Amino acid sequence: MTRPQLTHIQIDNYGPWTVEPEPRREMDLQTLQSRLFADIAQFVGSRDGYAFFTRFDNMVAVTNGLDRTDHELLQESIGNRYPISVSLGTAVDPVPIEALEGATERVQAAGSAQDRARREVLGGEYRPPEAGDVSIAHFDVNDATGKYTDRLNEFDSFIRIEQAYASLMRYMREAHGALSFFVGGDNVISVVPEMTEAEYLEAIEHVSDDAGVELKVGVGFGPTPHDAGIDAKHALEDCRYDGTRVEFAGDEH
Amino acid sequence: MTRPQLTHIQIDNYGPWTVEPEPRREMDLQTLQSRLFADIAQFVGSRDGYAFFTRFDNMVAVTNGLDRTDHELLQESIGNRYPISVSLGTAVDPVPIEALEGATERVQAAGSAQDRARREVLGGEYRPPEAGDVSIAHFDVNDATGKYTDRLNEFDSFIRIEQAYASLMRYMREAHGALSFFVGGDNVISVVPEMTEAEYLEAIEHVSDDAGVELKVGVGFGPTPHDAGIDAKHALEDCRYDGTRVEFAGDEH
Amino acid sequence: MTRPQLTHIQIDNYGPWTVEPEPRREMDLQTLQSRLFADIAQFVGSRDGYAFFTRFDNMVAVTNGLDRTDHELLQESIGNRYPISVSLGTAVDPVPIEALEGATERVQAAGSAQDRARREVLGGEYRPPEAGDVSIAHFDVNDATGKYTDRLNEFDSFIRIEQAYASLMRYMREAHGALSFFVGGDNVISVVPEMTEAEYLEAIEHVSDDAGVELKVGVGFGPTPHDAGIDAKHALEDCRYDGTRVEFAGDEH
Amino acid sequence: MTRPQLTHIQIDNYGPWTVEPEPRREMDLQTLQSRLFADIAQFVGSRDGYAFFTRFDNMVAVTNGLDRTDHELLQESIGNRYPISVSLGTAVDPVPIEALEGATERVQAAGSAQDRARREVLGGEYRPPEAGDVSIAHFDVNDATGKYTDRLNEFDSFIRIEQAYASLMRYMREAHGALSFFVGGDNVISVVPEMTEAEYLEAIEHVSDDAGVELKVGVGFGPTPHDAGIDAKHALEDCRYDGTRVEFAGDEH
Repeated sequence: MTRPQLTHIQIDNYGPWTVEPEPRREMDLQTLQSRLFADIAQFVGSRDGYAFFTRFDNMVAVTNGLDRTDHELLQESIGNRYPISVSLGTAVDPVPIEALEGATERVQAAGSAQDRARREVLGGEYRPPEAGDVSIAHFDVNDATGKYTDRLNEFDSFIRIEQAYASLMRYMREAHGALSFFVGGDNVISVVPEMTEAEYLEAIEHVSDDAGVELKVGVGFGPTPHDAGIDAKHALEDCRYDGTRVEFAGDEH
Repeated sequence: MTRPQLTHIQIDNYGPWTVEPEPRREMDLQTLQSRLFADIAQFVGSRDGYAFFTRFDNMVAVTNGLDRTDHELLQESIGNRYPISVSLGTAVDPVPIEALEGATERVQAAGSAQDRARREVLGGEYRPPEAGDVSIAHFDVNDATGKYTDRLNEFDSFIRIEQAYASLMRYMREAHGALSFFVGGDNVISVVPEMTEAEYLEAIEHVSDDAGVELKVGVGFGPTPHDAGIDAKHALEDCRYDGTRVEFAGDEH
Repeated sequence: MTRPQLTHIQIDNYGPWTVEPEPRREMDLQTLQSRLFADIAQFVGSRDGYAFFTRFDNMVAVTNGLDRTDHELLQESIGNRYPISVSLGTAVDPVPIEALEGATERVQAAGSAQDRARREVLGGEYRPPEAGDVSIAHFDVNDATGKYTDRLNEFDSFIRIEQAYASLMRYMREAHGALSFFVGGDNVISVVPEMTEAEYLEAIEHVSDDAGVELKVGVGFGPTPHDAGIDAKHALEDCRYDGTRVEFAGDEH
Repeated sequence: MTRPQLTHIQIDNYGPWTVEPEPRREMDLQTLQSRLFADIAQFVGSRDGYAFFTRFDNMVAVTNGLDRTDHELLQESIGNRYPISVSLGTAVDPVPIEALEGATERVQAAGSAQDRARREVLGGEYRPPEAGDVSIAHFDVNDATGKYTDRLNEFDSFIRIEQAYASLMRYMREAHGALSFFVGGDNVISVVPEMTEAEYLEAIEHVSDDAGVELKVGVGFGPTPHDAGIDAKHALEDCRYDGTRVEFAGDEH
């Protein structure tokens, strides 16, 4: 049974800040958001966690291996270097969506995302990493370059990928409580509970039927997201070489 | 009639680079991608253009106001500071998707995105900015904080936004040749041809029917994306205060 | 006669901010400072200017080619993305130190660097670039790798370079009103008035006598710092190949 | 007795890279260097170490608390995200300069800084942190704002600070084997062995006589550079309030 630790990262009172005293330059907001995400990705990633940009003003991270002290330090360092601050809620559960539900509740319990008085909430539970706590599924599109990138204009390629992602994210959440994130190119990374090969094939077929895009997936397990994720990447390489649709990493399970 | 200038930015041979000699740490890739986008957003944005992250390995920018020399400099500066290089294709057309089609063709004509020999393509046409060349529509979700962010877990909020975006992007492209980009939070920015208030209302109703999410939109015009976009933001503020669904900026038209 | 345009960039009320409410983590301050400088270097540099980190809380830029609008935009963009704001003063004079004197006066006239009420000063004069307005001298140390880097521990190498820099900066300022900046490695870039070969040789001999370090120098002229500086770099390459101590770039003068 | 762990960070074959195939834009080099330093400062700093930019192509870090795995990860992550790679040598000794000597030797033993074949050296010894292993002295200038920043042009202020730094760095290295780094503003941070109050007063008087600049200093001890450094900052605040020249932090010793 997996035990992913999910962290919900929310910029405090961000919406109002972007338009007060008047709307700020959009490209400055884009720069701020993507650099903030990059800093979180480095902080979390160099401790073997995974962070996802999600909506940018709200981000999701899988943080098995990061304890409360790490979260405090991340929060302090962002507060020292950005014009905004962040709140962090963390929870652990075998089902990823349940863990995130617990994480979000810690933040919501302290006040609204647009409450001026609510700043730098830090709450939750943390779990020392153990083998098999995290499972990561790494999906990509079969021959995206040949079918889309080299043939369609960039937006029409993007629409294909985006429709596939919208379909997959909804299916995986509803059927399995899994959290799926587009990570660029034709890649989607899912934080998943234990799932069978048949269940992955059903997900792939759902997207094929629903959005007309053919996916394949590599699945890994590990004590941390990086461990599970790097195994998933290797498994996905196996799919590529063998022409298969689902591969599980070795016997790390 | 609008005359948007679109630039397609493609990282050269990126897919293979991410897995050779073996898969690289995902959070390093995320950091690299989002910082590259941030740098492009600053370069383009400080010249009054707009850049969108799209798939990260392929980005789209609206570059009215940037000429060939600017594009050369952007390409050279990225080559000097990143382990990867980028190709740039640019074109102008009254319909945004047609402009992007022309831009992508410049890049595709030189070789595949995964061609090892194809590096730093630079091609296209550039247009000195004139009043009304660019129209930007800035959409957001009605009361996203109250309906979603403060009530649902972060992933379920995100799914709502993402489904609305997937619906809007497809509709706007098919009905109007417009290019719509999620820019974080509950915001979508569209590069649009001239559209009527009725056409915007139809788009909003389409998303309401299709994804169950209620949008509003501010529309601006200008010689550059920043000029059009800041007007669109002000128009969207007008929607917020007046409770309207579509507002056009003053009489800049 | 050269006409360098100098900009003094001062972080508003930075010293107190670093210790209030209590001292902030030093590495967060280092990160903030060096990224702020990097952003300014990109903004100014992509408009063919040069920026130097100097004391980090106070920076100096040579900005021929950047007008008031550019300075306003730089100031606004920093204010949008950092927890601090900056004041900018600009002036033009044939002698670099006089130009900087005028630039600093614009900032000082509005209040102290630690005045809580003084924010985002913007004042000065701007000059459209003309041929020969800027002269840049690029110094480096003869065989720094062989004599120091590969033989001494890093700090003892650094001491040699630093003593040479301290000697050169003082001499060039006192004898010629030139502004010299350490730019990393064994490199010093000077913003200079017109100087003869004999004057450069005297400077080099002064440092040899005073600090025991042997320098060489390439000198360039141009309408902008980048133009002058890239010529200076090529001239310095000529020194390297020909074993000479002073080289002037072609006949760009 | 202190036991600082010093790491020498050297960019591999950087000098030649900056001019091949021809000299690169100086502001791109400045951006690359300062962002690389910022990333290292974040990586090391968030593990309670201290990093200094030194010559930028060669940096020095105090890394008590970072083991070999941390150093490997830093090296891998830089290799994944920059167009250059770094070599790292680490050593421990009661005297800081001796520790750095050992660190540099690890790198030099593998080849020249400009050896094309030498890449990503990683060698050295690592020490689990213990109380009192690190001592940090934080110097600043008495009333630098009132005496210099608000009265002189920025370069003449900078010259004063720089001459004081050049004097202090040399004195502290020769008299005590301490390593002193300018960290911006009017601040110098020294990695020191155990020193008495009388020895600090002598250092301050040396700089007063030699460079005409009046310093004060706070001194801290701790298991890591951050612990020692934050205590030093508090001690320096005590100097400010009490008008003293040397303060030692509480009884953390």
